[in-house]
Order: sequence, then structure tokens, then C-alpha cells
Amino acid sequence: MNPTIELLNSHRSIRKFTDEPVAQSTVDTLIKAGQAAATSSFIQACTVIQVSQGERRDALAEMANNQAYVSEAPVFLVFCADMKRHKLACDMHDADMLSGYTEQFLTASMDCALFAQNVIVAAESLGLGGVYIGGLRNKIQDVSDLLELPELVYPVFGMCLGHPDQNPEVKPRLPLDVVLKQDRYDDSQDAERIAAYDGDVREYYKTRTGGNKDMTWSEQISGMLVKEARPHMLPFLNGKGFLKR
Amino acid sequence: MNPTIELLNSHRSIRKFTDEPVAQSTVDTLIKAGQAAATSSFIQACTVIQVSQGERRDALAEMANNQAYVSEAPVFLVFCADMKRHKLACDMHDADMLSGYTEQFLTASMDCALFAQNVIVAAESLGLGGVYIGGLRNKIQDVSDLLELPELVYPVFGMCLGHPDQNPEVKPRLPLDVVLKQDRYDDSQDAERIAAYDGDVREYYKTRTGGNKDMTWSEQISGMLVKEARPHMLPFLNGKGFLKR
Repeated sequence: MNPTIELLNSHRSIRKFTDEPVAQSTVDTLIKAGQAAATSSFIQACTVIQVSQGERRDALAEMANNQAYVSEAPVFLVFCADMKRHKLACDMHDADMLSGYTEQFLTASMDCALFAQNVIVAAESLGLGGVYIGGLRNKIQDVSDLLELPELVYPVFGMCLGHPDQNPEVKPRLPLDVVLKQDRYDDSQDAERIAAYDGDVREYYKTRTGGNKDMTWSEQISGMLVKEARPHMLPFLNGKGFLKR
Repeated sequence: MNPTIELLNSHRSIRKFTDEPVAQSTVDTLIKAGQAAATSSFIQACTVIQVSQGERRDALAEMANNQAYVSEAPVFLVFCADMKRHKLACDMHDADMLSGYTEQFLTASMDCALFAQNVIVAAESLGLGGVYIGGLRNKIQDVSDLLELPELVYPVFGMCLGHPDQNPEVKPRLPLDVVLKQDRYDDSQDAERIAAYDGDVREYYKTRTGGNKDMTWSEQISGMLVKEARPHMLPFLNGKGFLKR
């Protein structure tokens, strides 16, 4: 163990921030750390839009399920998968770009995730905290319009950053032997392992909410998966030129 | 700046490793650091298959475009997006799972990317090095068969890890003002910025290869994008129950 691994292990989402601002030079440092992450075949497909303007922020907060911290966080970033830049590169060399492949959607989206994870780790190493905002995808067309995203660019998720004004506990994760398997996929013992883990999660929620939340992991997951999952995503992405083949 | 940010900024892919083994306890530590990353709505959709068996390793190396380091690296991990575990949770509660949504494919894949980025950062903090292996997707059906992956599980990428036996330079990234935009997407100056950056990349390759590789970023990207991008991915993923709606 070392300080970096301890830092990674101490991650929890921060949704409440002090008023203390974050300097633009700090944001730049975080973005550069994001760029340093691996990028699939050097595509560098992540563009970050930092939203500072008050009205745009409020609009985004509303689009993301009325999450007030999207308005309130000192820094709000939208991570976009960007193949428009690739189109530009192709145009510079009179090359006919073949787009719309699922593989390209995946690598561009992955690039954003690796980039963003470096950003949040770097932020936490400076004593900041933050949270990913997948809720932007609830109204992804509106978000895209607001940020004036062209074809071949889509908003993957947002991120709030700032100085923490809360100190939540680290959430317990699945047992190691459920997530790490040797040589082949074998889940023959996962049901009982998950049942045991369910008890840990129930304890965590009870303690954290003073007994108000009584929920296991499998209950939470099963409750979520009986519902539609943002069915507008595929048509939206198709409209942006992604996932067409 | 601090040691963690310096570590992130010093990332480069390592493809050559010494014979020194990596203890299983270290691998476990890395996986736990991976689990500590944020997970979309607590879905914890990443399963890692550690492949140690020689024959399976050699087979994977061949499937990944004959990349010898997939055979040779002391540790090889395959990161899988796993919704089979969610099906299990649903079965535990007699819930009818709605699957196949693009949104679910995205969040499960993102979970793997955030997890994996923590793994590689943790590894590098211990003096190890590594490289993501997207090449597994070249023969993704064969990889899936080899690892006995069931429906609702797919291999996103692999990762080699070990003690570095090479010391490549850090690759220059796009200028900050290309990847970080304020309040809206504005790429009106990107063409000239990329042209300037192209010069940096050309210099980097020339220095690194003793003048043998003469290539800019935009040339490299445009050369890649005139070709098909793993067109088997969508039918494969559909077959696994992903991206159906």
C-alpha cells in the first residue's frame, strides 16, 4: 500500500461543496492529467466543456434530474466523446472517413472514461472531491443543444468538482472473488457470495441513514432493472452519427 | 502539482517486462483499487478475468494480432462488462430484467474503464507498468469462447502488467485549448491548433525512431479512419444481449 493507492481506496462521491473557488490553473492541471491517460490508438477522443456561465449551469442542473449540486459545484465539466476532430484530420488529408461503427463509439467513449478517471483522481489528490453526473443523459438532446454539440460529438457524462463540505463513508464493494476470476468465467458461487454481500450493504445503508434506508445490493439492482433504461439513447446517438453499424 | 499528479502525467504504455513476477497479493490490491472507482448507480458491472494459464495466454496473444507481450507479461487481465450478475440479482427477487438498452451497454462499459484506469494508476504507483490491449476485440468471439463468457458479459479490453524493461518517452498530447472548451463547443480554431500540434508529433516520432517514422497526428488518424473499424462488433454484442435497443 502507498499514498496513491490509499487515495484511490478512499474515493466517495461528494455532492456538497464549500464556497471556496477552484482556480482555473487547477482545472487546467486536472485536464492535463486527464489527457495523460491512455488513449485507444492515440485517437484522443475526449473534449471537455467546462460550464461556468450561471444560466447554462442551471439549465444543466434541471436537465440532470434537478440535481442542485450541478448548479452549485465550483467546477462543472461535461466530458464529450468527440470524433468531429477526427473528421477534421481526415479533411486535412482529403481522406474519406468511415464513421458510425460501434467499435468507434466504444473507443471514443472509453477515452472519455479513462480521461475523466484521471481528472477525479488528480482532483482528490489535491483535497478536492467530486461526483460523476450520468443524469445528463436523461435529457441528452437538450444538453447537446445547450452546449452546441455538432454531429460526431456526444456528452458522455458530467462531473462536479470542489472543496468537500461533507464526509460520507466509503461504500462497500462486491467481494473480491466475485469480481476477480481465474482463467475463465465461473460464477457458480456468486449467488451465495452476493447474498452475503447484501448483508454488508444493508448494514451500510442502515448506519448511514440512521435506520431509514433498508436495502440490499441485489434489491437495488433488481428494482432498477425492471424499468426502461433511457430508451432515447440509441436514436439520439444514431442522430449524432454513432452506432449505425 | 503533487506526487500523484506527477505519476498520472508520467504514464506511458509499457510493452516489455522483466522476468520478475508480480505477487498475487499485489494483483488483489490492484483489483480492490479498481473496485474503489465510481460505479454508475452502484451497478458494479466490471468483472476481471486474470489469465495465467500458458495455453490460454498464448491463444489470447494470437487473437490480439499476435502481440507477444500478451503472452509474456507477468500479469494479464481481461476486463469484462458484466450484466449477468444483474440478471442474478433480478432472479433473486423474481424481477423481470429489461436488458439490451444502449444506456446499459454504455454504463457497464464505463464501469470497466473507470475500474481499469484505477488499476493501472495503482500499478504505476507501485513501480509497475502496463498497456491496455484493445486488440482483443479483433477476435472478440474467440476471446469470449476461450474465457467461457456467457450472455450479458463481453470482454472490453485486456491489460498487461509487470515490471518495466523499457523506458519510452511520454507521448505529446493535443494542446489544452483543443480539448478544454468554455461553456459551448467551439472548434473554430482547432484546425490551426492541430496543424501546430502535428509538428510536435512528427518531432516525437522522429526522435523516438531515429528518423524512421515520419508521421503527424492528423495523418495517423486519417489513415486509420478510411478503414473499417471492427465491423463484427455490433453483431457480436447483439449476440451477447447488448445494444439491441
